[in-house]
Amino acid sequence: MSTTKIVILGAGYGGLVTAIRLQKKMRRKELDVTLVNKHDYHYITTHLHMPAAGTDHHENARVTISDLIDERKIRFVKSTVRQILPDEKKVVLDEATLDYDYLVVGLGSETETFGIPGMQEYAMSIKSINSVRFIRQHIEYMFAKSKMEPKRKDYLTFVVGGAGFTGTEFVGELADRIPVLCKTYDVDPTDVRIYNVEASPSALPPGLPIDLIEYGMEVMRRKGVQYKLSTAIKACTAEGVILGNGEFIRAGTIVWSGGIRGNSLLQQAGFDVQRGRVKVDSCLRSYQFSDVFITGDCSIVTSPEGTPYPANAQIAVQQGYNAARNLLQMARGKEMRPFVYDYKGTVASLGRGDAVGLLKVKKVKGRLASFLKKVIDARYLYLIGGIPLIWKKMIRKQKSATRNYHVPN
Amino acid sequence: MSTTKIVILGAGYGGLVTAIRLQKKMRRKELDVTLVNKHDYHYITTHLHMPAAGTDHHENARVTISDLIDERKIRFVKSTVRQILPDEKKVVLDEATLDYDYLVVGLGSETETFGIPGMQEYAMSIKSINSVRFIRQHIEYMFAKSKMEPKRKDYLTFVVGGAGFTGTEFVGELADRIPVLCKTYDVDPTDVRIYNVEASPSALPPGLPIDLIEYGMEVMRRKGVQYKLSTAIKACTAEGVILGNGEFIRAGTIVWSGGIRGNSLLQQAGFDVQRGRVKVDSCLRSYQFSDVFITGDCSIVTSPEGTPYPANAQIAVQQGYNAARNLLQMARGKEMRPFVYDYKGTVASLGRGDAVGLLKVKKVKGRLASFLKKVIDARYLYLIGGIPLIWKKMIRKQKSATRNYHVPN
Repeated sequence: MSTTKIVILGAGYGGLVTAIRLQKKMRRKELDVTLVNKHDYHYITTHLHMPAAGTDHHENARVTISDLIDERKIRFVKSTVRQILPDEKKVVLDEATLDYDYLVVGLGSETETFGIPGMQEYAMSIKSINSVRFIRQHIEYMFAKSKMEPKRKDYLTFVVGGAGFTGTEFVGELADRIPVLCKTYDVDPTDVRIYNVEASPSALPPGLPIDLIEYGMEVMRRKGVQYKLSTAIKACTAEGVILGNGEFIRAGTIVWSGGIRGNSLLQQAGFDVQRGRVKVDSCLRSYQFSDVFITGDCSIVTSPEGTPYPANAQIAVQQGYNAARNLLQMARGKEMRPFVYDYKGTVASLGRGDAVGLLKVKKVKGRLASFLKKVIDARYLYLIGGIPLIWKKMIRKQKSATRNYHVPN
Repeated sequence: MSTTKIVILGAGYGGLVTAIRLQKKMRRKELDVTLVNKHDYHYITTHLHMPAAGTDHHENARVTISDLIDERKIRFVKSTVRQILPDEKKVVLDEATLDYDYLVVGLGSETETFGIPGMQEYAMSIKSINSVRFIRQHIEYMFAKSKMEPKRKDYLTFVVGGAGFTGTEFVGELADRIPVLCKTYDVDPTDVRIYNVEASPSALPPGLPIDLIEYGMEVMRRKGVQYKLSTAIKACTAEGVILGNGEFIRAGTIVWSGGIRGNSLLQQAGFDVQRGRVKVDSCLRSYQFSDVFITGDCSIVTSPEGTPYPANAQIAVQQGYNAARNLLQMARGKEMRPFVYDYKGTVASLGRGDAVGLLKVKKVKGRLASFLKKVIDARYLYLIGGIPLIWKKMIRKQKSATRNYHVPN
């Protein structure tokens, strides 16, 4: 009998945690595990809002996979997935094709633009190391450009579409960074505009109690953020955004955080999808292909009441634990255990030293919430890389260029 | 009898040194001196190649004017000069009009594009703090962009037009910075191209002996610079440059250092100009308006043999000394002294730790030349701001973002 072949696609939260848990729990040569990822690094999506705004170095938001994976136990293949063939139990990569007995799909999300014209072309989104380095440089480029064409105040206007979790966290960092950039580029801070446009009537992550939302919006407004709530973006152009009410905001920078959808490879492979995401069974498997586990943003998990849980890092990590355990249970001829989401709460950063959130049902805000946010970040680093990783990414971390561009006196 | 009114236009080398020497040498209220400058800072043009490439912070290339000028002695007006009216002895600024008895014009240079189509629109030039911040950010932006569109290798191609003093110094720094940027942006260094295009058959500042030129070119080639000599640029487009031989180089970045001309305000004011520059008499005065002194890049000074000296910082500083002295001589009813250029030599940087040059007739190269270059820089800072300025700009200096983006391990 040959060893069961497991292929894990994607080293995001779901895929990476699956791999790390297998590595830790499986006996020598118990399973033949291959992890496939486009980059040789994993990135910490929940931290990307900082390098996007330039308030932290992007190196602090990624971890080299070979630092986490023991290649004597798990094979790592740096390649891009081109096609999933669930009927043939094969995966086509850029330079190879892999067979599997069980597949774990953790290929993450794509930007959902809801068909808004121009959004794909003219808006940037916070989704990878590459994209946040691009946003960071775009912002600085606009500051530099505004000094070459002093009449183009629109270079100093920033529109962020979506005021949910990612939009709020990014806007908080951006507002913190503006004074530094103004000093670096000799720009009058009153020339800078930050608009956060949101189709729903409320900013900040849905589900937060009203007093926390008000607190958060007040913090943001004091930093100079202007909210446009109950306002859809009708179109984006090379010059700015057209709002639902017909208003045109000329802007040099448009960042879209208004929605995500599952990786389009799933639909192409014949999976039944809702916005690119696949509804999974109690053990995170596709209803169509029971040898395919789906984790993270590609999956839809519903609560016992039948409502889908929002896609986030917390659930993806727990899915990774569950998938790894069930793969081992199967290999050992034992029964699989259903996935139960243990919701611990959510904390959204409002920029330096401030945050709002709920821990289960307990409200937190201000410095305490900001501290808890760091604890949550540290907990995740501990989970994937232990104390050394916390040391490397949070303590002895890469300095952001921002601070050093700050001019004293 | 009212005090003689001196107006100095421009706080570049010529204008600033004139003001500083007057401040030092004149008696209390002996002259009524006004210094006009567009910015509230003076910038060290000979240092701009470093912040342009991002190898030094732009703060190290500028000095706040109020740190140098004692406003009890000299009035400083931050404004842009709109018009010079030499017949009426007036200068029109953005918000005011000034009368003068004697005018010192040190308004610096503009880029000479020789009518090359597209050069004005698509090439950047190393001429001010604003322009070098823009170049620095443009370069990084191209790196960030190349990761978003991996097929666009042209984003990683850099064309520098002109391989004279400025072109060479910039290319040396750029080549030094590339490995750092490649690490920061996960770019394969073999994808990066640097072309230095020069119409004359030789690179490096004219007048250097052949062995130094060969040494310098070899240093640059080892850093990855590709020379295109005896090659004119026929046109620039949004996509790249068209060379004289018909070759098209697709490039995301074009920097032009191929020529300068005098400030166009002089021609508009009715001065006889050659490429915007005014030929001056032995006391640096216009032949048409003997109450107008012209210094720096706006002036043409000829050697006793009648050949014009090249425009550079060294001559501008000496002109500032001479202009200040002669203004005082006149005020004291004494005879003016003719300007005599004391050529001390020239050293061109080839990037970190290397340079070539001539001190009078003595050849220097390598580490020694690089050290001498720093001595020359320090000497100038000493001249305008004493030891404290050397301390601030060269020792306790602003750290470049570059170094911090460098990833260890």
